[in-house]
Amino acid sequence: MRAKEQMKFFLEPRSVALIGIPRRTGKLSLNILENLLEYGFRGRVYPVNPNAREISGLRAYPTLADVPDEIDLALIATPRPSVLPVVEECARKGVKAVAVVTQGFADFDEEGRSLEAEMVRILKGAGSRLLGPNTLGVANAFIRLNTSFARPEVTEIPVGVIAQTGSFFTGTQRFLPSGKGIDLGNTSDVDFCDGLEYFEDDPQTRVVALYIEGIRDGRRFMEVARRVARKKPVIALKSGRSRWGLQAARSHTAQLAGVDELYSAAFRQCWVMRAADIEEQGDLARAFCRLPLMTGKGLCVVTMSGSAGVLAADACEDWGLEMAPLLPETRAAIKEMSLPWVNIQNPVDVWPAIFSETKSSLLDRYIRVSRAVLEKVAMDPTVDGILFIAGVMNPRDILDPTEVVVEIAEAFPGKPIVCVVHGRNSPAITERLERTGKTVVFPSCERAVRALGRIRQYAEFRGKEDSS
Amino acid sequence: MRAKEQMKFFLEPRSVALIGIPRRTGKLSLNILENLLEYGFRGRVYPVNPNAREISGLRAYPTLADVPDEIDLALIATPRPSVLPVVEECARKGVKAVAVVTQGFADFDEEGRSLEAEMVRILKGAGSRLLGPNTLGVANAFIRLNTSFARPEVTEIPVGVIAQTGSFFTGTQRFLPSGKGIDLGNTSDVDFCDGLEYFEDDPQTRVVALYIEGIRDGRRFMEVARRVARKKPVIALKSGRSRWGLQAARSHTAQLAGVDELYSAAFRQCWVMRAADIEEQGDLARAFCRLPLMTGKGLCVVTMSGSAGVLAADACEDWGLEMAPLLPETRAAIKEMSLPWVNIQNPVDVWPAIFSETKSSLLDRYIRVSRAVLEKVAMDPTVDGILFIAGVMNPRDILDPTEVVVEIAEAFPGKPIVCVVHGRNSPAITERLERTGKTVVFPSCERAVRALGRIRQYAEFRGKEDSS
Repeated sequence: MRAKEQMKFFLEPRSVALIGIPRRTGKLSLNILENLLEYGFRGRVYPVNPNAREISGLRAYPTLADVPDEIDLALIATPRPSVLPVVEECARKGVKAVAVVTQGFADFDEEGRSLEAEMVRILKGAGSRLLGPNTLGVANAFIRLNTSFARPEVTEIPVGVIAQTGSFFTGTQRFLPSGKGIDLGNTSDVDFCDGLEYFEDDPQTRVVALYIEGIRDGRRFMEVARRVARKKPVIALKSGRSRWGLQAARSHTAQLAGVDELYSAAFRQCWVMRAADIEEQGDLARAFCRLPLMTGKGLCVVTMSGSAGVLAADACEDWGLEMAPLLPETRAAIKEMSLPWVNIQNPVDVWPAIFSETKSSLLDRYIRVSRAVLEKVAMDPTVDGILFIAGVMNPRDILDPTEVVVEIAEAFPGKPIVCVVHGRNSPAITERLERTGKTVVFPSCERAVRALGRIRQYAEFRGKEDSS
Repeated sequence: MRAKEQMKFFLEPRSVALIGIPRRTGKLSLNILENLLEYGFRGRVYPVNPNAREISGLRAYPTLADVPDEIDLALIATPRPSVLPVVEECARKGVKAVAVVTQGFADFDEEGRSLEAEMVRILKGAGSRLLGPNTLGVANAFIRLNTSFARPEVTEIPVGVIAQTGSFFTGTQRFLPSGKGIDLGNTSDVDFCDGLEYFEDDPQTRVVALYIEGIRDGRRFMEVARRVARKKPVIALKSGRSRWGLQAARSHTAQLAGVDELYSAAFRQCWVMRAADIEEQGDLARAFCRLPLMTGKGLCVVTMSGSAGVLAADACEDWGLEMAPLLPETRAAIKEMSLPWVNIQNPVDVWPAIFSETKSSLLDRYIRVSRAVLEKVAMDPTVDGILFIAGVMNPRDILDPTEVVVEIAEAFPGKPIVCVVHGRNSPAITERLERTGKTVVFPSCERAVRALGRIRQYAEFRGKEDSS
């Protein structure tokens, strides 16, 4: 069976067996079975427990052999000494995929390392695979699957995560949303390549995000990653960069991270985008999900705040973009709306135009001017992408640009538009804008421009590949 | 009069005259007078308007000369052609401080530049000073003063802001909170040095944040900044770093920003901390406000998430800190609480200890283990500061560490404790933690460690200064 097909038993299982589930349920019980049911998993579930006839309303079976069904995925969470015997049972039963949640293997001592190797050997012999140990398992929002004891928000978005951590279940949704996720844990068998090959042709995934503490087979990783990155953006966060980080990674997932520069060079060669930190990884995941690739380097900044415009212009140079020169006719059309003394440049400051007449309400002027200016710059052929710095000044009065931004995004589907929302109502407006799925809101101009710059960088790579 | 004393007329005026206020009031009217009154300014207010006898319930005066009071601060918001005559009136009246809100002077053309110089000359001759033009004025939460048409959140916190932008009024509170603020606008007269000298001995200000597009008198800036930075941390965000940023800065506040490297070198020499972006500036402002300076480089990371611990350990090296080795007795005491197979290292992973018994509820164990571990590491002499990575895993169930963090902060006032909150309830928990004023919550480990690293950097500078 091809590795790709086998990975489906992990991510799209039709039947799941759970071995070693606590009988405690309810508030903060960290009960995997209970979570699985509450999430509404669209598959068959079999608890295995010799001491119970029923758990959470499901019939429990004394052993795996007693389960009267084929098992795609078995999750093992028993104490370490009994894990190997259960793995042997899985092999005998012909379970297609096995995930070991239990900690304390290669992440702890040499005996643990040997046990791990033995489990991999047994399962390989039976045509099965091992995820973990020391893993929270997998998540797949599209079939309401969540094998962790935590309760992540699972949403059907086209981001696939492959991580040597279960944090994407519990901690990073605010930054790194995932539609499907794999916690590799100690990465004894199933590794980044298996995950990448699964996501390569998965129609539900458009962006792949990796959290890497260490990679064992660098040559194979580069081969697979390069192939996948030609089809979908791959964004890597690599830790264990430093002496202390290395030490911490060793006891976390037993990785022997190599020289950091080698990772950087390898990523560059196979066009995996390395994120500087978790915030950038989340920024890029959202950006690649929602925005078209930039067809050129020309950025236009439309702003309510002069200083934000200056900061955005600086960031432009940092991230390989260019401030679009704008055609004379674009400048003239915008100048017509504005105060006579204003020189129209890029960044385009919309504030004077909003101030140029005072007959209609501020909100009306704000919407009208923003729409007109955004339309003009989006039509300008020197502009390949737009940063709109919206201003929401007062606590009670809302200047909400959502409608205008959606209009522009829909009218100009080839030019990404991203936003920064200044002001006190920004959390509410930010949420409204984000929910449209047509733009990404960033907390600062620097981060907005960085994301566009990296989208452009990826577009250039794809352009080279396509024409070669 | 010394500059320092004169700056008090801007920031602590007892009487304010407003010239050129629109008669429109209410929702989104951007009426400065209305804002001033709504904020509850603790001083006397005089609207000047030849066409009205009363505005917003206050008696209006046809000219400044008619106001039967001494004026500390006059705000001018008339159209450009009438600004100079009003400035002349201010000089005749003996107004102590003048702020020109009107745009379109040196930020627009040569005539504007000459007008600006003329205004400065006239006011200097009368023993007064000019703020702006092109300024939103000043804010001082301690006397409920806000001269801008926007409605910022003004809170009595010890952060003073001096900025070539009014954004701190409208847009950046989420990042950069301010207790007092000065918008220098075109910086024709009142400049960074004047602001720094005001904040130097101001008992209500402990941290000074600058947003700089350009500085004219570099030598004087360095002299003043170096003196002030010996007493209080000064954090600068400098824009106009790039070709495009420079161009944008020129039309925003008419600054001729010089070579960026010179600014960096100057900042380093006078121990002004340069922030990379607006997020770092806000992080540092909050950190310096609330936390003690670190007395050494030893950081201890206490974490619910292994991968977050690795990322924090990496950041440690990036920002000049060291992972504290921990005394053998500290490790032994923590190991006693944990599972037998766990090696206690720094980062200290509290998860196994929380899992080591299952009799009490998860919340109880979480609080008990966190408190015990944090106490042990805070007592350890190799630890100079703590990063606590709290985990809040489930949407309905709240693991709230606020009480424990406050206890540790109060019991160990010489060791800063900062937090990162992972998980779905994090916004609520973050707000609770932040409100205590005893810690700072950062959105990522990298930013938490960066802030501690820069606190340590500043402490080293102060140490050198004190012993020299």
